[in-house]
Amino acid sequence: MSLIVQKFGGSSVANPERVFNVAGIVTDTYKAGHSVIVVVSAQGDTTDELIEKAAEINPNPSKREMDMLLATGEQISISLLAMAIEKLGYPVVSLTGWQAGMQTDSHSGNARIKRIDTERLSVELDKRNIVIVAGFQGINRFDDITTLGRGGSDTSAVALAAACHADLCEIYTDVDGVYTADPRIVPNAKKLDDISFDEMLELASLGANVLHNRSVEMAKKYNVNLCVRSSLTRAPGTVVKEENTVEKMLVRGVTRDNDVARIALTDIEDTPGKAFRIFSLLAKNNINVDLIIQSIGRENVKDISFTVSRGNLALALEKIQENKDSIGYGDLTYNDNISKVSIVGAGMVTNPGVAAQMFEALYDAHINIHMIATSEIKVSVLIDEENAEKAVRVIHDKFIPA
Amino acid sequence: MSLIVQKFGGSSVANPERVFNVAGIVTDTYKAGHSVIVVVSAQGDTTDELIEKAAEINPNPSKREMDMLLATGEQISISLLAMAIEKLGYPVVSLTGWQAGMQTDSHSGNARIKRIDTERLSVELDKRNIVIVAGFQGINRFDDITTLGRGGSDTSAVALAAACHADLCEIYTDVDGVYTADPRIVPNAKKLDDISFDEMLELASLGANVLHNRSVEMAKKYNVNLCVRSSLTRAPGTVVKEENTVEKMLVRGVTRDNDVARIALTDIEDTPGKAFRIFSLLAKNNINVDLIIQSIGRENVKDISFTVSRGNLALALEKIQENKDSIGYGDLTYNDNISKVSIVGAGMVTNPGVAAQMFEALYDAHINIHMIATSEIKVSVLIDEENAEKAVRVIHDKFIPA
Repeated sequence: MSLIVQKFGGSSVANPERVFNVAGIVTDTYKAGHSVIVVVSAQGDTTDELIEKAAEINPNPSKREMDMLLATGEQISISLLAMAIEKLGYPVVSLTGWQAGMQTDSHSGNARIKRIDTERLSVELDKRNIVIVAGFQGINRFDDITTLGRGGSDTSAVALAAACHADLCEIYTDVDGVYTADPRIVPNAKKLDDISFDEMLELASLGANVLHNRSVEMAKKYNVNLCVRSSLTRAPGTVVKEENTVEKMLVRGVTRDNDVARIALTDIEDTPGKAFRIFSLLAKNNINVDLIIQSIGRENVKDISFTVSRGNLALALEKIQENKDSIGYGDLTYNDNISKVSIVGAGMVTNPGVAAQMFEALYDAHINIHMIATSEIKVSVLIDEENAEKAVRVIHDKFIPA
Repeated sequence: MSLIVQKFGGSSVANPERVFNVAGIVTDTYKAGHSVIVVVSAQGDTTDELIEKAAEINPNPSKREMDMLLATGEQISISLLAMAIEKLGYPVVSLTGWQAGMQTDSHSGNARIKRIDTERLSVELDKRNIVIVAGFQGINRFDDITTLGRGGSDTSAVALAAACHADLCEIYTDVDGVYTADPRIVPNAKKLDDISFDEMLELASLGANVLHNRSVEMAKKYNVNLCVRSSLTRAPGTVVKEENTVEKMLVRGVTRDNDVARIALTDIEDTPGKAFRIFSLLAKNNINVDLIIQSIGRENVKDISFTVSRGNLALALEKIQENKDSIGYGDLTYNDNISKVSIVGAGMVTNPGVAAQMFEALYDAHINIHMIATSEIKVSVLIDEENAEKAVRVIHDKFIPA
């Protein structure tokens, strides 16, 4: 008998039919003799509806009260799922974040799990109850309800798996695993049977919306057996695991991210601290910067280009213009008709030709590259948005045999 | 500086405009220098919507999971009210039932408050926070969320007032106090400035839906200064207090209750245990019996009449018929076109002529009386439903000067 943690997202429990689909997966696992902890998110659009309710009252509420409000979403879905499992005739109990012992720090709205007090969980598992836990939420040391921010339910599931020494943590979603590219763009994209934690981290941050980074980081840290599966097909899915046990394949995935805008500043004085000034200004305004490229200086001046998400573009331009004098630059230009296309693969680090092959594929397809950025297991290029899907296809054809 | 507990029902916080109305009352009280604990119910139809959601999944869910679900209603309204008060610029914190230390027994769906652990409340009041507490809910000794059943938020408010030794507990509702009769029936009904706990208890159980009985009982037990007020007019309202301090007035209120049906059994053998058999049968089927009249026996037989709520009539008749042999009776008849009209007043006990005056008013109006029942501070009569409103008016005219 194993202990299995199963996590289901909001769309998996969006209506009564889907709730019973999830109840079916859970009870089948239980029937097979396993102990089961289930983590659920809020149903479908519940969280958005709650955010709207708050906005009608106060456009800028405290994060503490926002967490109090949002935590109800998961409390509703855990109780409904428990009722469905009761209907199927199995012993079940639902637990909120605090009842499940999910202790967090006090960063309301974006709390980190500090420790899980597993006493109540153990009692319920010992009674042979299916235990349903509200994802995304916890409690701080003052007994205030906190939420974990984006991807919180994935993180809850992995943390529970780590704390309870679960044999497996299954993340159920509406795709049946991790693919070498988005199948809507690349029809012959392949499902990966396994992928390393590091590859998954790069893919997750590159816009393959399967698993949230924080959960993958935590799974890596505590060596949790993680698996991404579909709640609809029940196919085996993709296992995320340690690098050395992963199938060797040079490029594991090709991704595209359209939520990107490039800002370029020219003729910046080539003295120390200039880059720091720009990026600390952006950080102060909560603007995340992704790729950064600084040109080789010519005659005491240099150019700096970087990318931000499109939602942050206007604010970033405004702040840079406001501080033109202190930064000191010539022109400020931007482009928001671009996409970031990336390849990810743990094998790259030992295969220096990979980037060149990617550029060749783009050259053959007459696609111009605006910016290039690389890491040990990733190469990203910025290209015109209109070429992005074509780029994903030609790169995928180059690296991944049909 | 006093400590004031203010309770607002679901309709008082049904939409953003009303939430701000409540926030206005609360912050005005705080501005006047008082400490304030606010108890709120779930917004408008939230509880009904949650019950419907559950019914779609499981028509017969466990009460434990139902409580988990329903408790979200109040959690939503406390956080929204807190956000409104934040918007007005006052320090505020919302607390769920368990955060407010509301310890109950384990009767899910109808739990009783056992004790309030006021530590967190004190900390927040000491910080000069306005403290908003979710009504209707608590936590049992296993850390499971419980709800208090009907009128639960009134009970939460009174219990908090008792535990925190509040100077006053204000129950805000959509009427501006307790009236001598329903103003829709008796246009010249008068608002009472004060009323005794016992009178309020009789009125509450007679269908004057202002305060729930459990809350009045608790207020009486712990001698809480209770007041019923309107959240719309902010008029002074009605104070509920100890009998000896209440204005002396013979009849304090005339009420009508249409949710009543009479069942009559004739020719029951006049031996001990017959009445017990009938009423234990009904109790076993969760049918509450209100008035009971047993006729004086003639030749070893007697008749028994009693009233039940209309919703229970069919079941009561069915169960009695099923057990005809063991009960042993002649005819079984019923009437569900009747109403119960009652007068309540603590002064009655020392004024034996009151009942006679009531019957005289009905006789003058040619209204026939089917059944009569009296207590120390109450006289109830059963009459045809079509005469009920007229009866309330003529009785009100008789006792309460215009």
